[in-house]
Amino acid sequence: MTYREDIEGLDASILMHPRVWEASGHVENFTDPMIDCKQCKARFRVDTLTELISAKNKEKAIKELDASILSADGALDDKFSALLEDQTQSVKLLELLGCPQCGNKGTFTQPRKFNLMFKTFLGPVDDSSNIIYLRPETAQGIFVNFLNVANSSRQKLPFGIAQIGKAFRNEINTKNFLFRTREFEQMEMQYFCKPGTDKQHYDEWKEKRINWFKSLGMTESKLRFHDHPKDKLAHYAKEATDIEYEFPFGWGEIEGIHNRTDFDLSRHQEFSGKSQQYFDDETKEKFIPYIIETSAGASRSFMAFLVDAYYEEEVNGEMRSVLRFHPKLAPIKVAILPLVNKDGMPEIARKIETDLRPFLRIFYDDKGAVGRRYRRMDEVGTPFCITVDTQTLEDQTVTVRERDTMQQIRISIGGLLNYLSEKLR
Amino acid sequence: MTYREDIEGLDASILMHPRVWEASGHVENFTDPMIDCKQCKARFRVDTLTELISAKNKEKAIKELDASILSADGALDDKFSALLEDQTQSVKLLELLGCPQCGNKGTFTQPRKFNLMFKTFLGPVDDSSNIIYLRPETAQGIFVNFLNVANSSRQKLPFGIAQIGKAFRNEINTKNFLFRTREFEQMEMQYFCKPGTDKQHYDEWKEKRINWFKSLGMTESKLRFHDHPKDKLAHYAKEATDIEYEFPFGWGEIEGIHNRTDFDLSRHQEFSGKSQQYFDDETKEKFIPYIIETSAGASRSFMAFLVDAYYEEEVNGEMRSVLRFHPKLAPIKVAILPLVNKDGMPEIARKIETDLRPFLRIFYDDKGAVGRRYRRMDEVGTPFCITVDTQTLEDQTVTVRERDTMQQIRISIGGLLNYLSEKLR
Repeated sequence: MTYREDIEGLDASILMHPRVWEASGHVENFTDPMIDCKQCKARFRVDTLTELISAKNKEKAIKELDASILSADGALDDKFSALLEDQTQSVKLLELLGCPQCGNKGTFTQPRKFNLMFKTFLGPVDDSSNIIYLRPETAQGIFVNFLNVANSSRQKLPFGIAQIGKAFRNEINTKNFLFRTREFEQMEMQYFCKPGTDKQHYDEWKEKRINWFKSLGMTESKLRFHDHPKDKLAHYAKEATDIEYEFPFGWGEIEGIHNRTDFDLSRHQEFSGKSQQYFDDETKEKFIPYIIETSAGASRSFMAFLVDAYYEEEVNGEMRSVLRFHPKLAPIKVAILPLVNKDGMPEIARKIETDLRPFLRIFYDDKGAVGRRYRRMDEVGTPFCITVDTQTLEDQTVTVRERDTMQQIRISIGGLLNYLSEKLR
Repeated sequence: MTYREDIEGLDASILMHPRVWEASGHVENFTDPMIDCKQCKARFRVDTLTELISAKNKEKAIKELDASILSADGALDDKFSALLEDQTQSVKLLELLGCPQCGNKGTFTQPRKFNLMFKTFLGPVDDSSNIIYLRPETAQGIFVNFLNVANSSRQKLPFGIAQIGKAFRNEINTKNFLFRTREFEQMEMQYFCKPGTDKQHYDEWKEKRINWFKSLGMTESKLRFHDHPKDKLAHYAKEATDIEYEFPFGWGEIEGIHNRTDFDLSRHQEFSGKSQQYFDDETKEKFIPYIIETSAGASRSFMAFLVDAYYEEEVNGEMRSVLRFHPKLAPIKVAILPLVNKDGMPEIARKIETDLRPFLRIFYDDKGAVGRRYRRMDEVGTPFCITVDTQTLEDQTVTVRERDTMQQIRISIGGLLNYLSEKLR
């Protein structure tokens, strides 16, 4: 459901023309420095090698390289990382340390750039002229379609284009469950605006986006902004922040909000030879719009909502596991449980199911004690359980049990849809 | 919205373990025979080469190869294709004809199998041990997740798993707009059932699926089944049919319904070494379920709905183009048009928009004559236009104009949502 008239949807392709990724800078810059051991052929990402080496060995190697570094201020790991990031020092350092896999010394290649885009070949010939890439981000698909969408939707600035879709990065080290995977889902909105209004829109989207996570029940104290300092901004960004969530393994980015300026459309104009200018009807000006990007990881956000909702608590001397999902996020909205599987209760329960199913995702469960059925629904985060019992047969009411409070109230069957729709909104 | 409790949703990954595609048969069989000209390096798909060669040259070449073939019954193209499909004859034939690109004779390679799966490399080393494939169909992602879904959803046979997602085929010849593209969207449902009940489910799904297209307004006379004859069935199929639509370029498949038997799960059991058997609580039997597949092309179906909805007709001496989309498929449900952009009409129109937007996709248009605005909405298939006019200011009613009949009725503003919801259902 679209609640804003200034946002359009898009489903751009995963395989795009390779020039798109030259324009975006990904062919040149979307790389990690890699180093190979010539002896055992193991390959390492230079910037994560530090995790594989003990503190003692780090200290020893730095000392041999330049003892004065060790006596300066700062943490050992920071010093080590600084040396590793220095192309001329990193090989020397690794030669002193030896290969973390085979232990041989002095057998490393120079660090080389490894591009994180998955490449494949279009057509039957596997040669370099046919290389295409799986998109490493959904953003560029929006940028190259900017004028198509603007013209066909008759949108005027400011307006946004939103997209949910898969992206692919050939990560060397995947980690933390869904946090870093090679195939992942992004949900992005790129907001096109007039230069000069960009700061205002950036600030607005920052607020709107963190409030979106809060409005869906994410714990406020586990959410924070990490504003990028000016000297660490990406090449395309004038201002940037991450929305971070405190996962059990530490703070991690779940969304990035960036003022990308006119960098992207200018580059696509240059590389495609097609004007990406927008014509402003009112002022009769032509210009390249600025872009405010809100780029969320759908997979990461999913994991954040999942861990945030998970609770274990003691109820009447027993532990219950419960997912306290916001009702909008709960995969099952309502469970329908006939108390016993006879006496006409299944028939009434099935009737309720049939009436509600067109509107809500329902789970019908008639197996086992009702207490155990409640627990199962707690475990998958179902906000409401409807129980059909003996009284139902008499007065056409059912109990509705709420997941978090575990309180039950009686509602007439006829009033169920209204009651639940109100609660689930 | 899930209307059936026996169908679960899934979003399987695009990059799966390469053994999946060995088990499915794609590594071995998902190939086209290709032939190269050694001189100019051009590569041809043997089975489509026939389009590139003139009738005269075909006749001449067949005559030189075996004159008796020419005097037999049958069309020239069929004879030529039969020779091309014969490995020993095809090279001789092509040597007689010469290369369709450079004209040189006698310089062809033997036909080779070209796999239609896009391949890429997992991790930083591009060697054959790291090859993975982009999925050429969404079906296998469902099959390998069958027991995961069955166990976590507590479904019992018969039940289905449905998925919408991208698939990729490295087609040599793409054609007919969205009909054959290298990246496309599938929408599939795989229905798992007990052996012996498969025929009944196959017949039921056949009917249900063609009725789905009809229920969304697709012209009945442009829909037909193409049942596969027994001797042309795919290796996995016991029975199969295509739902075909009559596109402007001819009949084309938009969905396939297949009785895949226990072929897929048996193969995955064999290649993974993990049992894929289902345990039937009631009969205490263990067996591998049969699968009835309903596999629709979302991209193709989209194109079929689009061309089916397109009409040009004369109205009051002028042509109008109209997309007669079923209301459920119309991208915009309702347009709101203030007759003039003053006298309080925009305010009322904006109020109506705000009230309807949470429920319906709305387009607000205050530019140009109202007749022209109606035409724009006809062109994008918007089923209803609401016009705010002078009478609205007096009695709080608006006109609602229906796209196909172009008839207008007056409705009170308060009754709009109910009226539209009823009509759009």
